Amino acid sequence: MQSRFYTLTHYPDGMPDREQFALETQTLPELVDGEVRIRNHWLSVDPYMRGRMSGFRTYIAPFELGTPMEGGAIGEVIASNHPKVKVGNKVSHMGGWRDIAQLPGDSVTPLPDSDIPEQAYLGVLGMPGMTAWTGLNLIAECKPSDNVLVSAASGAVGSLAVQLAKAKGCHVVGIAGAAHKLAWLESLGVEPVSYRDRTAQELSDAIMLASPDGIDVYFENVGGICLEAALSQLNEGARIALCGMIDGYNAKTPTPGPSNLAQLIVRKAKIQGFIVADHWASYRYFLNEVTPQIAEGKLDYKETIREGLESTPDAFLELFEGANTGKMLVKLI
Amino acid sequence: MQSRFYTLTHYPDGMPDREQFALETQTLPELVDGEVRIRNHWLSVDPYMRGRMSGFRTYIAPFELGTPMEGGAIGEVIASNHPKVKVGNKVSHMGGWRDIAQLPGDSVTPLPDSDIPEQAYLGVLGMPGMTAWTGLNLIAECKPSDNVLVSAASGAVGSLAVQLAKAKGCHVVGIAGAAHKLAWLESLGVEPVSYRDRTAQELSDAIMLASPDGIDVYFENVGGICLEAALSQLNEGARIALCGMIDGYNAKTPTPGPSNLAQLIVRKAKIQGFIVADHWASYRYFLNEVTPQIAEGKLDYKETIREGLESTPDAFLELFEGANTGKMLVKLI
Repeated sequence: MQSRFYTLTHYPDGMPDREQFALETQTLPELVDGEVRIRNHWLSVDPYMRGRMSGFRTYIAPFELGTPMEGGAIGEVIASNHPKVKVGNKVSHMGGWRDIAQLPGDSVTPLPDSDIPEQAYLGVLGMPGMTAWTGLNLIAECKPSDNVLVSAASGAVGSLAVQLAKAKGCHVVGIAGAAHKLAWLESLGVEPVSYRDRTAQELSDAIMLASPDGIDVYFENVGGICLEAALSQLNEGARIALCGMIDGYNAKTPTPGPSNLAQLIVRKAKIQGFIVADHWASYRYFLNEVTPQIAEGKLDYKETIREGLESTPDAFLELFEGANTGKMLVKLI
Repeated sequence: MQSRFYTLTHYPDGMPDREQFALETQTLPELVDGEVRIRNHWLSVDPYMRGRMSGFRTYIAPFELGTPMEGGAIGEVIASNHPKVKVGNKVSHMGGWRDIAQLPGDSVTPLPDSDIPEQAYLGVLGMPGMTAWTGLNLIAECKPSDNVLVSAASGAVGSLAVQLAKAKGCHVVGIAGAAHKLAWLESLGVEPVSYRDRTAQELSDAIMLASPDGIDVYFENVGGICLEAALSQLNEGARIALCGMIDGYNAKTPTPGPSNLAQLIVRKAKIQGFIVADHWASYRYFLNEVTPQIAEGKLDYKETIREGLESTPDAFLELFEGANTGKMLVKLI
């Protein structure tokens, strides 16, 4: 059986382009003991993957050039040499960027039995959702009385962060760009603020208008002017959960940080970076809390879907143009 | 009786100059009930005072133009209308920038009975010492196994931070400029690193050489290239106690922050700002721990002393040139 997969041809400097991804074909070897073969239905593309294209180790190894890329995926088991993984099982795993994956059965996770569409386990009930929950609860220790600000608030992570904060009873402000994203945020009861065509000072003023009592918790996905604007609006004891800084991921030269970090002193505030993988032991608490809210339609989630394996590189690159509302996915079947 | 005191004539833009301080004389009114009159022996000048010259409220009100400036001071009570404060008592208080202070007796703190020179209660046993202890213990939660980095390491705060960390058993690197400061740090068992004539990258490389196992705790007093260099050397789970950012206090225009804040994500690290006043309830724990070490000569401290009330503005301005080793003080008597 053949597998079609993407490899990285070289490590990009600045914004990657389409030519850095090569579609290759391989005839899969026989399953060895413990292995399973999966037909992928859905592939995930996520901003963090840019970090694996840098050629050096950060908190995770870089993609190896010329070998199948990796990423979150959902598929159905079509062959198994593993005692606990059965043909027909739906599983989530890291063998993405390809149509057929062959992996150790121990490395795949069966999907819970539910009526929730399977691709939700790549988004609102998967890594991005768990990231939002972790940042808000475990890092920022968000309380019902907090005024919460979220950047990239209509993205896969941000859109769950704003809703989890709303569900707690917080006053929530969400930063986004496009009009339809701002409208969606407003429909969720979030105060929408646009970053478009604004200086950091102007964005800061807009945040102040949207949250006159200041900001206690900032869920940060962007960096750039969003961070500078937020720092100027912090209340005493504010907590910033630093999840991502997509603004700088494709910078060819270092981009300066905010000029007002001293606000952290004045406001006795903290910024804390985190990686969701470190908190995976709490995934079941997240699922227990969020799954019923998804099943009952209390939490809204959106997907931006591209079709076909060949669309995967473009779907990934579009993340940096803000093309997605909610989770960006590639649908294979 | 007359009091000579400094007032601020206007709020400086950028580096203050000598003309922004006016020496004035006032005939003190009769003591009202509860008041005490103090002949100051020692005045403190500290970097944080620059923040009170900005004309707007931060965590503390700005100096009011044309009224006596304030600051830490040590003196002897020469008249009292307060039942608990006696003539002859040595006290610390906030009526600095003047020779004779007249204040509510409730606002002054009697010095402990000890053989330690009284001015130590403005430095190593006072606010700067407590700041070092608080940042290291309460904010950065420093443990004996930590690799510790301190900027402005020969200053009033930094020089105690490095020694408290050494006393815990930590490996300690101290950043300073002048050769005699680096030599002092070395004599304390601290790895000295100069920031002079270095880029952030060069400073980062020097820190790596001095602390090959990375940095777990960074006590930050400076900002600028020190912060950028430190961020590149953080270990996983590193804690940065953000005490001050003197590098930017006199900037006329905003100076960009570090370009590598995303290291906080990769290293799952945190930066936390703090103000020592919030932790004053723990001052007695600090005194209990540090006073015996001072009395036994186990902790070294230096003072840079200017003489006479008229030298106060210059002593303050010299802080921003790095003229002080240890605590900068003005001796009146």
